[in-house]
Amino acid sequence: MKTRAAVAMEAGKPLEIMDVNLDGPKAGEVLIEVKATGICHTDEFTRSGADPEGLFPSILGHEGAGVVLEVGEGVTSVAPGDHVIPLYTPECRECEYCLSGKTNLCQAIRATQGKGMMPDGTSRFSLDDGTVLHHYMGCSTFANHTVLPEIALAKVNKDAPFDKICYIGCGVTTGIGAVINTAKAEIGCRAIVFGLGGIGLNVIQGLRMAGADQIVGVDLNPEKRSMAERFGMTDFVNPRDVEGDLVAHLVELTGGGGDYTFDATGNVGVMRTALESAHKGWGESIIIGVAPAGAEISTRPFQLVTGRVWKGTAFGGAKGRTDVPKIVDWYMAGKIEIDPMITHTMPLEKINEGFDLMHEGKSIRAVVTF
Amino acid sequence: MKTRAAVAMEAGKPLEIMDVNLDGPKAGEVLIEVKATGICHTDEFTRSGADPEGLFPSILGHEGAGVVLEVGEGVTSVAPGDHVIPLYTPECRECEYCLSGKTNLCQAIRATQGKGMMPDGTSRFSLDDGTVLHHYMGCSTFANHTVLPEIALAKVNKDAPFDKICYIGCGVTTGIGAVINTAKAEIGCRAIVFGLGGIGLNVIQGLRMAGADQIVGVDLNPEKRSMAERFGMTDFVNPRDVEGDLVAHLVELTGGGGDYTFDATGNVGVMRTALESAHKGWGESIIIGVAPAGAEISTRPFQLVTGRVWKGTAFGGAKGRTDVPKIVDWYMAGKIEIDPMITHTMPLEKINEGFDLMHEGKSIRAVVTF
Ligand SMILES: [Zn+2]
Ligand SMILES: [Zn+2]
Ligand SMILES: [Zn+2]
Ligand SMILES: [Zn+2]
Repeated sequence: MKTRAAVAMEAGKPLEIMDVNLDGPKAGEVLIEVKATGICHTDEFTRSGADPEGLFPSILGHEGAGVVLEVGEGVTSVAPGDHVIPLYTPECRECEYCLSGKTNLCQAIRATQGKGMMPDGTSRFSLDDGTVLHHYMGCSTFANHTVLPEIALAKVNKDAPFDKICYIGCGVTTGIGAVINTAKAEIGCRAIVFGLGGIGLNVIQGLRMAGADQIVGVDLNPEKRSMAERFGMTDFVNPRDVEGDLVAHLVELTGGGGDYTFDATGNVGVMRTALESAHKGWGESIIIGVAPAGAEISTRPFQLVTGRVWKGTAFGGAKGRTDVPKIVDWYMAGKIEIDPMITHTMPLEKINEGFDLMHEGKSIRAVVTF
Repeated sequence: MKTRAAVAMEAGKPLEIMDVNLDGPKAGEVLIEVKATGICHTDEFTRSGADPEGLFPSILGHEGAGVVLEVGEGVTSVAPGDHVIPLYTPECRECEYCLSGKTNLCQAIRATQGKGMMPDGTSRFSLDDGTVLHHYMGCSTFANHTVLPEIALAKVNKDAPFDKICYIGCGVTTGIGAVINTAKAEIGCRAIVFGLGGIGLNVIQGLRMAGADQIVGVDLNPEKRSMAERFGMTDFVNPRDVEGDLVAHLVELTGGGGDYTFDATGNVGVMRTALESAHKGWGESIIIGVAPAGAEISTRPFQLVTGRVWKGTAFGGAKGRTDVPKIVDWYMAGKIEIDPMITHTMPLEKINEGFDLMHEGKSIRAVVTF
């Protein structure tokens, strides 16, 4: 079949809107109609050429929501008409990682996904001249239709609006999951969140849901304050307004340091500050942000020997097929908010404008709807 | 009263054996007769002058065992005749840290202990010319008698031999506790231990007790192998014998990396290797060794984002008054071994020879008996 897509032909170039060929689903695969897809810094990381593992030409996009149109041989967990969210971290429920009970990092299709291919090593996308287009993060949601492995689809509530829940396929789950799955924050805890972009806001609302007593937000941009307060931030700290040492200030503000601190900036210097402003004896610091290639974190080992714990999280530690449907239900029940974070919607033809909005810091999330 | 002690008069000088004055216990304090005390790298760190917080003159020593002679006002948990192990990490059972349930780092007397004083800010030790001698780590066991706060004494089984259980006051608890309290290693786990000195051997026997399936020991000295095997090591790796990357070798040997890895070297480069040889998705790496002043650990944040956890431990995360008596009982029941680690005993007069043995790598633990 043909479908309309935004194609990244070369690193650093704007996406090109065109019709592409899409083969039907093979065994274990599913064809979906994408109804909405968010535009994320991770897409930009690859589009720009900064991602050393970026592949071109490819169809980017990994924050989608849509409807199942057709299933391949052997697919049993979804059927045509089901509403689904694509998962860049799949959940096979069979590999050592899935069965460990300790991680969400399913390894079932990691090798082929990393090569921009479906599990059989081939792509479903091509151009008329025979050019093969790479899949991206196993999702490729910058297309009106896409094919995914069954294990990379979460079946969700049919009443949920696509243009909001698409964000659950990335930032919402990453931020909330970092609190619930990775930190396992408990009622009454005190927390510090570095970076009040989309991920940071979701960490904040995860903490609110977890019953945190104090939620400190740290950002250089004072304009982030009001939105963060809306999501549950109790204290705002702008490092530019702090005289003296930021760590000491945060430790005092939280009565000893954060029980949990979160880096949502991707800056390795901030990651260190986040660790060192965690509470002596038990504070845990969780790295969410993605650092530039080659960047390293560092600290004195004394920080760990005196009880701080340094962790990271990917997709919020969430097992997608199991956890994502629950998060959709939380959204539908009003336990979490997404609407204020979807600041812009646009048709596929204007997707490059969505990237511009993100660059300029004007959007929290711009969403393409089909 | 007068007591015989080894005094560190100046940084870098041998200890001097002499009679010193010892005041009796004040309220909340206890006078004990030291029956045995181990000689530890931590004592040497301070004696040598390398410890930036070292105080002189002082009476070093922190791995003791002895008998209560006299108790100060208000002391209720120990009585004359009780056998005790001094605790450099006290357990007041009242401070925020003790009550948190998350750490053993009791803060009740931290400030005065760091200044080499009893909790009232004064010393019990002096010379005839009025010179005040500092206490050390709240213990000062390089003396035939010493005074400690009640909260820094673990009451233990009277049948246990002093010259063995003194080591429970430091390395035994540190190593075993790192496994039990900090890693919480479970039956069937795979682990890697870097550094097969006294601490490393105790990590190994902790892992054996915890039911680990594989216990890999890593050391540059092949002579460490046989003793480590005696304590439960299943695989020995000498980095000098590994062609190519040590991390890759260890990951392969353990089928994906250690579920738990332990640094017992104090070398920040080894700490990084330990982290990176932990299993993707869930491996935890625990820093036990004390690094040189100013040294920093570093890694790529990707290591944490893909599920590895970086932790540290002090005194094995053990709450001394609660946990040390249990470890003494485990020793008496034969669940753990200490005897082969006590390689030398000597009278106080020969304590400097004990330091020499440690320097030369000839002892695992040299113990002074009174
Ligand atoms: Zn994303
Ligand atoms: Zn799996
Ligand atoms: Zn010691
Ligand atoms: Zn305490």
